[in-house]
Amino acid sequence: MADTNLTLTLYGIKDLRLEDKPIQEPGPGEVQISIRSVGICGSDVSYWQQGRIGDYVVTTPMVMGHEPSGVVTKLGQGVTHLSVGDRVAIEPNQPCGNCGLCKNGRYNLCEKLKYLATPPTHGCLARYYCHPANFVYKLPDNVSFDEGALVQPLALGFYACQRGNVSVGNYVLVCGAGPLGMAVVLAAKARGVAKICVTDISQERLDYIKRIGADVTVTVGKEKPRVTSSRVVEALGREADVSIECSGHYTSSSNAIYSTRATGTVVQIGFGGPTVEIPLVIATLKELDIRGMARFANNYETVIEAMATGKVNAKQLITHRFSLENAIEAYNAALRREGVKIIIDCTRN
Amino acid sequence: MADTNLTLTLYGIKDLRLEDKPIQEPGPGEVQISIRSVGICGSDVSYWQQGRIGDYVVTTPMVMGHEPSGVVTKLGQGVTHLSVGDRVAIEPNQPCGNCGLCKNGRYNLCEKLKYLATPPTHGCLARYYCHPANFVYKLPDNVSFDEGALVQPLALGFYACQRGNVSVGNYVLVCGAGPLGMAVVLAAKARGVAKICVTDISQERLDYIKRIGADVTVTVGKEKPRVTSSRVVEALGREADVSIECSGHYTSSSNAIYSTRATGTVVQIGFGGPTVEIPLVIATLKELDIRGMARFANNYETVIEAMATGKVNAKQLITHRFSLENAIEAYNAALRREGVKIIIDCTRN
Amino acid sequence: MADTNLTLTLYGIKDLRLEDKPIQEPGPGEVQISIRSVGICGSDVSYWQQGRIGDYVVTTPMVMGHEPSGVVTKLGQGVTHLSVGDRVAIEPNQPCGNCGLCKNGRYNLCEKLKYLATPPTHGCLARYYCHPANFVYKLPDNVSFDEGALVQPLALGFYACQRGNVSVGNYVLVCGAGPLGMAVVLAAKARGVAKICVTDISQERLDYIKRIGADVTVTVGKEKPRVTSSRVVEALGREADVSIECSGHYTSSSNAIYSTRATGTVVQIGFGGPTVEIPLVIATLKELDIRGMARFANNYETVIEAMATGKVNAKQLITHRFSLENAIEAYNAALRREGVKIIIDCTRN
Amino acid sequence: MADTNLTLTLYGIKDLRLEDKPIQEPGPGEVQISIRSVGICGSDVSYWQQGRIGDYVVTTPMVMGHEPSGVVTKLGQGVTHLSVGDRVAIEPNQPCGNCGLCKNGRYNLCEKLKYLATPPTHGCLARYYCHPANFVYKLPDNVSFDEGALVQPLALGFYACQRGNVSVGNYVLVCGAGPLGMAVVLAAKARGVAKICVTDISQERLDYIKRIGADVTVTVGKEKPRVTSSRVVEALGREADVSIECSGHYTSSSNAIYSTRATGTVVQIGFGGPTVEIPLVIATLKELDIRGMARFANNYETVIEAMATGKVNAKQLITHRFSLENAIEAYNAALRREGVKIIIDCTRN
Repeated sequence: MADTNLTLTLYGIKDLRLEDKPIQEPGPGEVQISIRSVGICGSDVSYWQQGRIGDYVVTTPMVMGHEPSGVVTKLGQGVTHLSVGDRVAIEPNQPCGNCGLCKNGRYNLCEKLKYLATPPTHGCLARYYCHPANFVYKLPDNVSFDEGALVQPLALGFYACQRGNVSVGNYVLVCGAGPLGMAVVLAAKARGVAKICVTDISQERLDYIKRIGADVTVTVGKEKPRVTSSRVVEALGREADVSIECSGHYTSSSNAIYSTRATGTVVQIGFGGPTVEIPLVIATLKELDIRGMARFANNYETVIEAMATGKVNAKQLITHRFSLENAIEAYNAALRREGVKIIIDCTRN
Repeated sequence: MADTNLTLTLYGIKDLRLEDKPIQEPGPGEVQISIRSVGICGSDVSYWQQGRIGDYVVTTPMVMGHEPSGVVTKLGQGVTHLSVGDRVAIEPNQPCGNCGLCKNGRYNLCEKLKYLATPPTHGCLARYYCHPANFVYKLPDNVSFDEGALVQPLALGFYACQRGNVSVGNYVLVCGAGPLGMAVVLAAKARGVAKICVTDISQERLDYIKRIGADVTVTVGKEKPRVTSSRVVEALGREADVSIECSGHYTSSSNAIYSTRATGTVVQIGFGGPTVEIPLVIATLKELDIRGMARFANNYETVIEAMATGKVNAKQLITHRFSLENAIEAYNAALRREGVKIIIDCTRN
Repeated sequence: MADTNLTLTLYGIKDLRLEDKPIQEPGPGEVQISIRSVGICGSDVSYWQQGRIGDYVVTTPMVMGHEPSGVVTKLGQGVTHLSVGDRVAIEPNQPCGNCGLCKNGRYNLCEKLKYLATPPTHGCLARYYCHPANFVYKLPDNVSFDEGALVQPLALGFYACQRGNVSVGNYVLVCGAGPLGMAVVLAAKARGVAKICVTDISQERLDYIKRIGADVTVTVGKEKPRVTSSRVVEALGREADVSIECSGHYTSSSNAIYSTRATGTVVQIGFGGPTVEIPLVIATLKELDIRGMARFANNYETVIEAMATGKVNAKQLITHRFSLENAIEAYNAALRREGVKIIIDCTRN
Repeated sequence: MADTNLTLTLYGIKDLRLEDKPIQEPGPGEVQISIRSVGICGSDVSYWQQGRIGDYVVTTPMVMGHEPSGVVTKLGQGVTHLSVGDRVAIEPNQPCGNCGLCKNGRYNLCEKLKYLATPPTHGCLARYYCHPANFVYKLPDNVSFDEGALVQPLALGFYACQRGNVSVGNYVLVCGAGPLGMAVVLAAKARGVAKICVTDISQERLDYIKRIGADVTVTVGKEKPRVTSSRVVEALGREADVSIECSGHYTSSSNAIYSTRATGTVVQIGFGGPTVEIPLVIATLKELDIRGMARFANNYETVIEAMATGKVNAKQLITHRFSLENAIEAYNAALRREGVKIIIDCTRN
């Protein structure tokens, strides 16, 4: 029997369909990959439930999935650094490679950037998928396919720490205890920080992130950011060297500014409304650097190295596994906010 | 007749007094300076008219003046790098020298920082004044005392460009055409930038700054920051590499964020209300760096070098001169916003 | 009569031939360019006379020329940011775009880098030449074709100053007064440095570079580097903030290390023997950064901006012009070390 | 009985004497410290045996000891951030605080720097010692006095990694397996590096450093640096991102240059002869940064944090302990190269 390509496609709001699709052949510079593990991300759920995130709108059917690992099954023309049978992680970035930002190494900001499962670009939640080979990275034997699927979320955490120049001995504030905050905590710990404080509105999430590696936590309620900040500084024992805002709530951005020591850095990842009200004068007087962050670039190999050498234990984030045949069930679990990271196993049974 | 020490002191709101005071002797590590030229700054006028700037309140009589040049007249114990007769500029910073920020070279952020004419620290608008010798810098023969008084405002402009890493060939947006904006324009031009756009609400100031070196200007009205930004980008021909916000108005901060290219830098110097509403999500998605700035540090010698070698023409900022005897008249001219930079000549006639 | 493509090709040591070749059609992503001005570089003469530079050996006929400007005559498939008729400068770099160094913005270090007129890659000294469009840059109307040909040598000077973080008010030492040293001087001046000292063994070259912008010069003889350094420091008035070594002689590298202030930077561009003897302990104790430099990257647009806005006057480097028909005569003038920069005009008469 | 101040003083080559000296009172800004633990360093042995290190010559009797911890016993005038009874580590740096390098945060390069037990500055190997309070740092309860004595050697390792920007996932080469190399390995591991290769001529030292944390080692013989480098790259699996040269042998500097990937960094700490022969052209073509390092600055608090939070296990370096009364015996053990780190306990029995 000819091989088939079971694929999860989003046809519109709340309209996910599992269906067989043709298997693509790799074009020049591409590789064909037999997908193994794919994680589900909050953005996947948003596209499924709302059909959009900001200006990105699902107008035509879109294959889901942007946190993949797999095995190389075919090489396109000109591909030399990979071989059939290589176990790999796939970086979802597909920049143009020609613009000034790409040539300067900031390809995540390329205006023509395609990113897996971000409309109108298809994702990879299928049996087989083809991707530009220069964004496909070999996994060492001791990094599992599930861990390979976690390279993408970890890459966010690693990039945040790189943007913030998080370093050994630092005191770090992480705002938000969701999967992004967890990746940041793992990344910060790998860099040898002295102490991490995490804030969130959910005590349950804070309890969980403490097991992941947060040293202290502060539950945020309706108090003013100044008040939250005083509790953060008390919990840390002093002001943070670096604060990383993952929640997208402006009160967290304000808390981060209040809680960071003079000359420190605030990394802003989360995003909320089009404009937010923050104490910019405090940032000015303390000579803070507020550094934006748009996904990640140039760090897949670093994340894989850190996994392979035990500097991060990413596996602990995985709480659920489903087969590709049960992918819609997996999405429903994600919708119910069950667990932390849900993996879909795309291996043919 | 014994020498006297005519001094301008602020006794309270709108209460400036010229009076004779004892001449101080230099303590260990200090030098006594015969003051020659002292510029007037907007902050001087604010203390005079409102008795405060933010948390800095004039509660006891305070000598004015923080933009000084002069001649060394006596050396305190242990001073070796200066000689009596040296022509000098005086950096108003007097940090503790012992805290972590001082030891790290960020002494402008020292929590114990004293700064001339910032309550409760006296200024130097007098015939004679004593200052720590390590913040007193020799002026080359071809830098006049008036230029020496301009080192301080220029140091702000130079520091802003350093914070923003303004470089040759850059496109630069400067928000605010007051004395600070002018210093930034001069500093940016000295670094070889390709094009400078300045925004302000005053057409008159914009006309003036164009003569100083701005290439294009945009008059700001009541339109939304997005609209101002589109006019800035049109005037520049493309987005700015670096934007430097000198006005303290949140609409300018917003304009700066909209007008700066991805991976660019926004330097925030001006400050307005305790919180402001800005498009933080745009800064995040473009991976901007928003860098605060609190006065300046470690650049007096650079500014003096740039003056001595003709890289900046600071003299063009001076529009008025008064004698120390007429200092209050000088302050009234500043209050009426006459000209750009008013110099008080403290030389005995 | 069909158009022809007069081309200068190196067939072997001292065997340059002018001959007609077919006009190439632009491939996907390429543009065809009617070449106008091409400069001659010292490396061109080396390939011609010795048939090699280090490991780069001319084993098959190679078209010469890597400092070109021209007019776009045809667009290959997918090229959108250029139009037929655009006046352009051509960056000789042709990196792979796929390796880690390319993705990180350091494409000049790409292991698969092709560079015009560096064996086995052909150059562009012809009537027509095709090049990847993403390394072709528009020239503003006020930048001439001759200046366009100078973007390449200037890019070296600009990149050296960027590697050395040369900044306003700096004291700079440039070792070597040849074309590279001249480009460095022009670039450093554009950044507003306070003072430039240039060293060379040729008094004639030093006289020339002083007209270009060097402030002081030191003629180097057979004395020890320590002695040269003391003369450099005396000429500058103090140690250099940044030293840029362009000569490739180890005594200059040593002089640069001796002459640079603690915490300063030495940029090493020139290269001599496989190993050289330098005072590394001095560099260690002064915490110098010795930074290598391999051609340039990511700065063509900056150089063009600096030319267009008058921050560099590159034209003064041009001392000779020849037509393409007389290209071999031009090479002979270069061999005799006549003048500074020789331009070959490839425009059809 | 009045308290006494047993002190180890070097009177000349091979002339160490234990004698009672007066207890000093703390001057303004100083604290008096009851010394507890002091480590012995290779430089101590060099002064003892040769009476000099380079230009530093012991011409008058000098108290030994520059790796101290203790308890504050008296506060000098103006000291507010410490209290009597505080357990502390003492940073041996005593910079002038007034020069440009000090004001810029590079105080370890201060031309007037005094450093404990570096002629003509006395050390602290005594019962009591007075030191500027701003270079005295509190130890948390869980950091022992012996660990406090190790802050100084660890500070070298931490500073080396900071100079080299050693980061998570990096491949690191450390040349030299002595105490300095060990400190570098501990510091690099705290930053989450993926793999460390250490080279040395002594198999015994390499075996030891492997237990400290080195992943792979290469024993260096009389082969050429190119050969050593090929073995290093093979052991690491690829070129190093950062190489840190601790041995002072030029063949190691050469090996470091050969073994470091393009765009990587070589930190040079060790120093050998006045000039050394290195493959500078390779460093140039790979755009390496070769960064010197002169002791350390601004990182005592970071090291203490890293110790307190278990990011470095410094205690494992301690192999011997002697009482102050037996200090000369301790020095003899160091001379015989016994163990790794020898601690002298200065507590009165």
